[in-house]
Amino acid sequence: MTVDRILPTDEAHDLLGLATELADRELAPKAAAFEERAEFPRGVLRTLGRAGLLGLPYPEEHGGAAQPYEVYLQVLEILASRWLAVAEAVSVHTLSCYPVFAFGNDEQRKLLPDMLGGELLGAYCLSEPQGGSDAAALSTRAVRADDAYLVSGTKAWITHAGTADFYNVFCRTGGPGPKGISCLLADAGTAGITPQTAERTMGLRASPVAQIVFDEARVPADRLIGGEGVGFTIAMSALDSGRLGIAACAVGLAQAALDYAVSYARERQQFGRSIIDFQGLGFILADAATQISAARALTLAAARLRDAGRPYAIEAAKAKLFATDMAMRVTTDAVQVLGGAGYVADHPVERYMREAKVLQIVEGTNQIQRMVISRALAKG
Amino acid sequence: MTVDRILPTDEAHDLLGLATELADRELAPKAAAFEERAEFPRGVLRTLGRAGLLGLPYPEEHGGAAQPYEVYLQVLEILASRWLAVAEAVSVHTLSCYPVFAFGNDEQRKLLPDMLGGELLGAYCLSEPQGGSDAAALSTRAVRADDAYLVSGTKAWITHAGTADFYNVFCRTGGPGPKGISCLLADAGTAGITPQTAERTMGLRASPVAQIVFDEARVPADRLIGGEGVGFTIAMSALDSGRLGIAACAVGLAQAALDYAVSYARERQQFGRSIIDFQGLGFILADAATQISAARALTLAAARLRDAGRPYAIEAAKAKLFATDMAMRVTTDAVQVLGGAGYVADHPVERYMREAKVLQIVEGTNQIQRMVISRALAKG
Amino acid sequence: MTVDRILPTDEAHDLLGLATELADRELAPKAAAFEERAEFPRGVLRTLGRAGLLGLPYPEEHGGAAQPYEVYLQVLEILASRWLAVAEAVSVHTLSCYPVFAFGNDEQRKLLPDMLGGELLGAYCLSEPQGGSDAAALSTRAVRADDAYLVSGTKAWITHAGTADFYNVFCRTGGPGPKGISCLLADAGTAGITPQTAERTMGLRASPVAQIVFDEARVPADRLIGGEGVGFTIAMSALDSGRLGIAACAVGLAQAALDYAVSYARERQQFGRSIIDFQGLGFILADAATQISAARALTLAAARLRDAGRPYAIEAAKAKLFATDMAMRVTTDAVQVLGGAGYVADHPVERYMREAKVLQIVEGTNQIQRMVISRALAKG
Amino acid sequence: MTVDRILPTDEAHDLLGLATELADRELAPKAAAFEERAEFPRGVLRTLGRAGLLGLPYPEEHGGAAQPYEVYLQVLEILASRWLAVAEAVSVHTLSCYPVFAFGNDEQRKLLPDMLGGELLGAYCLSEPQGGSDAAALSTRAVRADDAYLVSGTKAWITHAGTADFYNVFCRTGGPGPKGISCLLADAGTAGITPQTAERTMGLRASPVAQIVFDEARVPADRLIGGEGVGFTIAMSALDSGRLGIAACAVGLAQAALDYAVSYARERQQFGRSIIDFQGLGFILADAATQISAARALTLAAARLRDAGRPYAIEAAKAKLFATDMAMRVTTDAVQVLGGAGYVADHPVERYMREAKVLQIVEGTNQIQRMVISRALAKG
Repeated sequence: MTVDRILPTDEAHDLLGLATELADRELAPKAAAFEERAEFPRGVLRTLGRAGLLGLPYPEEHGGAAQPYEVYLQVLEILASRWLAVAEAVSVHTLSCYPVFAFGNDEQRKLLPDMLGGELLGAYCLSEPQGGSDAAALSTRAVRADDAYLVSGTKAWITHAGTADFYNVFCRTGGPGPKGISCLLADAGTAGITPQTAERTMGLRASPVAQIVFDEARVPADRLIGGEGVGFTIAMSALDSGRLGIAACAVGLAQAALDYAVSYARERQQFGRSIIDFQGLGFILADAATQISAARALTLAAARLRDAGRPYAIEAAKAKLFATDMAMRVTTDAVQVLGGAGYVADHPVERYMREAKVLQIVEGTNQIQRMVISRALAKG
Repeated sequence: MTVDRILPTDEAHDLLGLATELADRELAPKAAAFEERAEFPRGVLRTLGRAGLLGLPYPEEHGGAAQPYEVYLQVLEILASRWLAVAEAVSVHTLSCYPVFAFGNDEQRKLLPDMLGGELLGAYCLSEPQGGSDAAALSTRAVRADDAYLVSGTKAWITHAGTADFYNVFCRTGGPGPKGISCLLADAGTAGITPQTAERTMGLRASPVAQIVFDEARVPADRLIGGEGVGFTIAMSALDSGRLGIAACAVGLAQAALDYAVSYARERQQFGRSIIDFQGLGFILADAATQISAARALTLAAARLRDAGRPYAIEAAKAKLFATDMAMRVTTDAVQVLGGAGYVADHPVERYMREAKVLQIVEGTNQIQRMVISRALAKG
Repeated sequence: MTVDRILPTDEAHDLLGLATELADRELAPKAAAFEERAEFPRGVLRTLGRAGLLGLPYPEEHGGAAQPYEVYLQVLEILASRWLAVAEAVSVHTLSCYPVFAFGNDEQRKLLPDMLGGELLGAYCLSEPQGGSDAAALSTRAVRADDAYLVSGTKAWITHAGTADFYNVFCRTGGPGPKGISCLLADAGTAGITPQTAERTMGLRASPVAQIVFDEARVPADRLIGGEGVGFTIAMSALDSGRLGIAACAVGLAQAALDYAVSYARERQQFGRSIIDFQGLGFILADAATQISAARALTLAAARLRDAGRPYAIEAAKAKLFATDMAMRVTTDAVQVLGGAGYVADHPVERYMREAKVLQIVEGTNQIQRMVISRALAKG
Repeated sequence: MTVDRILPTDEAHDLLGLATELADRELAPKAAAFEERAEFPRGVLRTLGRAGLLGLPYPEEHGGAAQPYEVYLQVLEILASRWLAVAEAVSVHTLSCYPVFAFGNDEQRKLLPDMLGGELLGAYCLSEPQGGSDAAALSTRAVRADDAYLVSGTKAWITHAGTADFYNVFCRTGGPGPKGISCLLADAGTAGITPQTAERTMGLRASPVAQIVFDEARVPADRLIGGEGVGFTIAMSALDSGRLGIAACAVGLAQAALDYAVSYARERQQFGRSIIDFQGLGFILADAATQISAARALTLAAARLRDAGRPYAIEAAKAKLFATDMAMRVTTDAVQVLGGAGYVADHPVERYMREAKVLQIVEGTNQIQRMVISRALAKG
């Protein structure tokens, strides 16, 4: 299915064309094997970086492409439709550049060109083993010692753990609660930062997730972003954008699943007909196509609010919630359309289904999204 | 809840403001009583017509407002959030002007100013008792007699039956199948056109629906629109736009239900707290808000395709399907949020729920929408 | 559809036969007209009482039929499939006899034969305007004055208000909280008991629901059931049985909707075929049939636990939750299967849909059921 | 959660106790490792056979335990709650004994004691690569040659391929259509029977599924079961029982997922509370518990129809459809309850989710079940 997109500029049109071409050439052919081997495609990320796809929503002066989120998210969607792990890596990396960009000082921002160009891959160290959804309760500590902070504690569920070049580390420099939290930009090679063995995840294996143990890791004080106590604000400010990224990934993944299932259902014959001609199957696909269109439209509507400088946090939460629940359903149904064939690795849909599940969990579980939305309704 | 809308022009912004003001003043206070009495608000329609809201998507040269569908649909949504029957009347009337506008000759188009100004209210006579979804099988006949057609047969489920001033009558002038169908524009006062008693509908009672019996009704031959055999093409061409209209109505209705339920759940106390603070209720509302946003975004995305002159039939079918299924669920849940109070006429949500049901049925049942979408997938 | 039932005794088999016969003869032909007129069928209840159907689960010594709940519920289901309001009346009445039966003294129990025989129709006065789900917070007071209690306050959502002969009145004789609540058996004719105008409900209109105002209503002290402070225990003990009754009603209502929709879909032709032969419709009906069978099985499984003297409260809550959510969905889908015809009063399915909604709300909203179940899970 | 079961006999009670004990001791501790290694637990099956759990629903004269299906299915459910692959193996094996038992001659039935005792493990060779759901179109041929049949063709999706001792091979001995199909009982060691490499399935890896190529495999003519042309009848007769088996497996799997999620949600603290105390999570669990109870009740109700000698095919289809859709939803939600922890192999819920998917596909996809049910409704 070609998706008919109304884009804001010709440049955006070209950009999506480039993304499609790269995705077809560099992502699609490699996905299955890398996922099978649980190998992170660092080279692919570098290729994307060189093509300018790793800094899309940032200003050109820092090495970005000055694209609106509306366009950036459609690039993400296209990448996700060929290989979710890579799209998620782009999303996480883009997010990881945000603290420096939005809260960093001029000196720190000098890192941006290398970050946005993909030479330096980033990660986001917020969650901890005990406090998945309750970020304000984090316990990793940073103690000031001369011109550095000594960071100790354990971070969990860190995407790019062990492959990233820099980490945004959210840690406690003050008392309990959100106001005691700061954000440090740590080089991955810092002594005392030890990524643990990767988690044995159900899917998205090419994108390693692991705990990282900080043991008096010495981060220079000039790597403090935005001042002490600003960490929680930084963490929260990037969250909304991150949710849009995950929503776009979910749309792309679901589209891939639908396209594959439609293609299979057209060719597969049973009882003398293509199975897509049976309403029992055809209506499943129609519902999937409808849900995908709705998720895409919702995600882009939220993005346009962001691009227009309006409040968009609630709409981003809705997009993340809707798109990822949708992707879970659509990928599960895609397996069903293939029947037994869908259950085996000869076809990608079983992988899509395993990958979809994580999207309902990351960047705030979908229960957290519902909390965010219902609280906004309660406030009025 | 104020919906934050990004509109294409300042004019559109003003137009929505006007629609909101009129809806608050002329629609909201009257809805319950008119619905209770099953009385069609002809005067309200006239008021809307004079305010320029009945010809929004048509060119100014014919008395329209030259608004894109994206804007027209948001006006519809606002009207529907105050009184569904009126919004549906606007949608049906707007649709009824389409055959003359798109397929009529210059002489016929002279009627447009009165139609678009609301002096002449229109209706659409397509369905028949035996062929709800199978329009191509219609059996109402029109026989040429001198300079007129004599029309005989029975039309069913005609909105505005008995209140309209003109009818687009789809009838068979040739052989079986779609190619034998023509479209005549009949004055409501024509002898031999007899609207029957209104159906006793579950809701939307202020908008009468009835059969119309045609008994050798004499329609002048110059009221033939677009030539003999073009009728089915005309019928189908307006359908897609009609589906967008229903989708917008569904969004407005659901928004009204959500707003009412949220407001109630904020004030209602149980176990010492506002019930909206219980996740069990709050999450229902969060899901409803999410679904509404998705339906709105999907509907407007389809409208923008139409406005851009691109194919939009499939996206319109998706919007109709998604938005009306959503409205059924959201209104049913809104009743649940009010509990016993929701089940009685002191609050409008039980009416909303009864009204939502018809939206899943009109302009092609949601099963027909799924057929349309799945066939498009099958063709690729 | 004939439901194939495995019954515990031949007597039960005969009883269901009798119930079916009575339901076909006395209920089915009257339902539509009584509902239209919002008239309570007191005579029908009397007929059922004389046939022995109003005291099914009570011992023969009190005038009951000594039937297990498993059988009683299937009688309810059959009645509900012909006329929900009557089945609900039977359920409410059966429940209303429970306090006297289970907690009454010998003198009070002398009323049982007339109650179980249907001469005296009962009602249950628990809810109040402010405390729908929070029964323990009720504020209606009963003050001891000589050999009587003077009852003052307002009860809400009382089924049989104005038609019942006796009321179980739950009122506060002591301090706040559940331990201050007592249960009085009041004659309906008592001065100071004033049923208000019936609520204008969306459906189930033949079963009046209204507030009842108690203004120093004098209830003899010997009508105190089970002692002061026992009221909340009494109220709660009957709740679980009441939930099973509502679950059985939901199954019957849904079965009626399915049977009607199947029958229509077999006869209705579109595109040259019975519409039931289109998988798009056939699968809706298959899902409905499946859900109904599941709800019936779940309800009867819970009933068998009750009959075996085992804890059954949680399973009753599950049955109420599942069966009523199911009935809402199935009746809504039944309307859809009929299309436009489903939306008008010529066919009963629109009434079924309006009736189904109340079942999700009464005897504890389905949110309350989820609270009950999740708390049991939390306790382990 | 202990499930409170009402069992028909004390013997059944003991049997379930034995099954639970064996499942806890022999299955639960081994499941994760065997699944990881994709190793079939032949030894475990032998242990179950020796304990008498492989011939439960067969008469004692053939070595069975003469248990009603109602009891057999609850044993299956218990096994499935500890290790789905083993329960499925028991179900498939039990099914594989059915053709010989029900259609075999006395000579053939002499094999039953070894089959029911677990010395000979069976498989069922019906599906083919081209005709998943359309069994009547199978193309594997058996040509009579002297006192044997030469079987050629490819069977697909064969559970126990390569580990079974005997195969029920459905093949064409006559013309096209169901009447040309026969059933042969082939020893696994027969020359010309070559199981292929096991499929790389998403889950249930300890239960190998593979194609089997038959290349002029010589099966003695006295291994023809029930006569030429009876094969399709045999295949269909076992299907209904097989569906009940899968339904029971689904109930057990979902129960395991719920139990694990409940246990986790009780212990896991967020925002200072056990997460099960948040309604947002608690209600997910309540819904899961409700759905599981409904699926169990529906499955056992269908089993009691079978045990009573009544028609049960439609109810079996409903049970298979409902229970497996339920298991898919419940296991997916169980992962969600654990959040990130649910996505990794440290906890079994991600495995449960991968396993659930296959249940919606085997023994007739859930779309086939809906066809079966809707056709029964269409016939009336």
